[in-house]
Amino acid sequence: MLRFGFDIGGTNIAAGVLDEQNRLIAKDSLKFPRGQGTPEVIETCARLYRSILDVSGIGDERIAGVGVAVPGSVDTRTGTVIDAHNLGFHHTPLEALLKDRLQKPVRLINDADAAALAELRIGALNGTRTAVLITIGTGIGGGLILNGELFVGGRGNGTEPGHMILRNGGLLCTCGVNGCAEVYCSATRLERDGAPLGILGTRALIDAARNGDPAAKRVFDAFIDDLGSYLASIVNLLDPERIAIGGGVCGAGDFLLDPLRENVGRKCFFETCPEIVTATAGNDAGIIGAALSAC
Amino acid sequence: MLRFGFDIGGTNIAAGVLDEQNRLIAKDSLKFPRGQGTPEVIETCARLYRSILDVSGIGDERIAGVGVAVPGSVDTRTGTVIDAHNLGFHHTPLEALLKDRLQKPVRLINDADAAALAELRIGALNGTRTAVLITIGTGIGGGLILNGELFVGGRGNGTEPGHMILRNGGLLCTCGVNGCAEVYCSATRLERDGAPLGILGTRALIDAARNGDPAAKRVFDAFIDDLGSYLASIVNLLDPERIAIGGGVCGAGDFLLDPLRENVGRKCFFETCPEIVTATAGNDAGIIGAALSAC
Repeated sequence: MLRFGFDIGGTNIAAGVLDEQNRLIAKDSLKFPRGQGTPEVIETCARLYRSILDVSGIGDERIAGVGVAVPGSVDTRTGTVIDAHNLGFHHTPLEALLKDRLQKPVRLINDADAAALAELRIGALNGTRTAVLITIGTGIGGGLILNGELFVGGRGNGTEPGHMILRNGGLLCTCGVNGCAEVYCSATRLERDGAPLGILGTRALIDAARNGDPAAKRVFDAFIDDLGSYLASIVNLLDPERIAIGGGVCGAGDFLLDPLRENVGRKCFFETCPEIVTATAGNDAGIIGAALSAC
Repeated sequence: MLRFGFDIGGTNIAAGVLDEQNRLIAKDSLKFPRGQGTPEVIETCARLYRSILDVSGIGDERIAGVGVAVPGSVDTRTGTVIDAHNLGFHHTPLEALLKDRLQKPVRLINDADAAALAELRIGALNGTRTAVLITIGTGIGGGLILNGELFVGGRGNGTEPGHMILRNGGLLCTCGVNGCAEVYCSATRLERDGAPLGILGTRALIDAARNGDPAAKRVFDAFIDDLGSYLASIVNLLDPERIAIGGGVCGAGDFLLDPLRENVGRKCFFETCPEIVTATAGNDAGIIGAALSAC
């Protein structure tokens, strides 16, 4: 049987079909119907579902189940999106709504959890039993693998590693708390600190640092120090086998990873530091993880 | 069958016998043979073991297994104490040494993990599947319950929650890293900040704050803010059902817990905050947890 995954984002709804070998055999996307309410989101999902099956010639009866990933807090026990600000979802029973519309079993999953699940099954965390995915973008997302399985929080609320506090009393986070890791370890931080230097954007800042611009290098080094401390915190709590870093900054490759490994190694309480690698499941990790979470 | 537990500390070696209902039915202690090397520690343990069985009239054949808790990093896979500075153990194969001496199956466990196991089975974490014990003393220790079981780290190194970084770049920790939670959330911090006020000791500082001394109250409030951020970090990562706080500061009762719950609740990313309670397994938690870890 095949599985279908949705990755609902504030810009696009991406979706695809996963075969028995966890390969994405069909995919497509539609614009997210911004500002049009939940019923239109459900209709757009249904349209995308039918269109992908039609184009790929896959019969609806071959789809065993559907997974749906959203950027926000979810209650996996009730299938409810608690808050997904970008989507306008607040206490939205998305699992039930989609199940009703598609007449398929539906499983709701946080998008960062979906990405971690994809890394576990087909990506950089494959073969681990205790591992962490940290996705560095506008904010910080992530997922935990514990005992060989995706960990969706002790109360089903998921994990919000970006809101661990790294500099208590520091800069204000979008969540209203001061000093969250997200404020210091996201791509937004590189942009924020690059701007006064006239360097616009994460990639430009990293390129300038790599090319020896001293001011850009200082910004980058400070970022590495914060990110290193943040990862060391997670290491010292969970002692994971491996940490995968996802998101655009990974394009920096060893220029990011080498100093980061050195930094975390120095702050790690244990004799050896876990592996730190880049995520490999790619842009489709959300779709794949959502499908993997389906029944 | 009964189980035997050792709690080896730098001052005393405490030990006792646990019955089938997890009740401590016999216990005693001997001074830790400081500076006399590992063989003398093993002999002291053996002496204590025999003495407890003799005094209580329990036959050696009724002891199914032995657990031994130590304050330090342990490799539970090999039964080796990696580092327990207070005991002078470095890469000490304690499990094998004790097994050889006592002719019993022996299991090694970190003392904070032992305490968490005791809280899980007979204390404040009973009935939980995902929970955290944080013990506030000279430093910060702790243990994690994940999926209803003690979590000893993804690589078997245990958990070192005191070395999560709470104020990156802050004050130097004994571990050599700047800004560890231990520096800001331990009893040592209250002593450190109380001393310039002429208030000596954690209890005196808390009493002065409770009695309305404004300077002491400021120190206490700052401590609550750091401890609240620290616990919020753990909450936002693991979404636990319950957090138990152990150690001497718990004597402060609701004077500690009420503002702490308010503080963590404000910084918790989720809609509701997990329960925050005091640990209840008491001073024998190490012995009990060690015995519980035995085969």
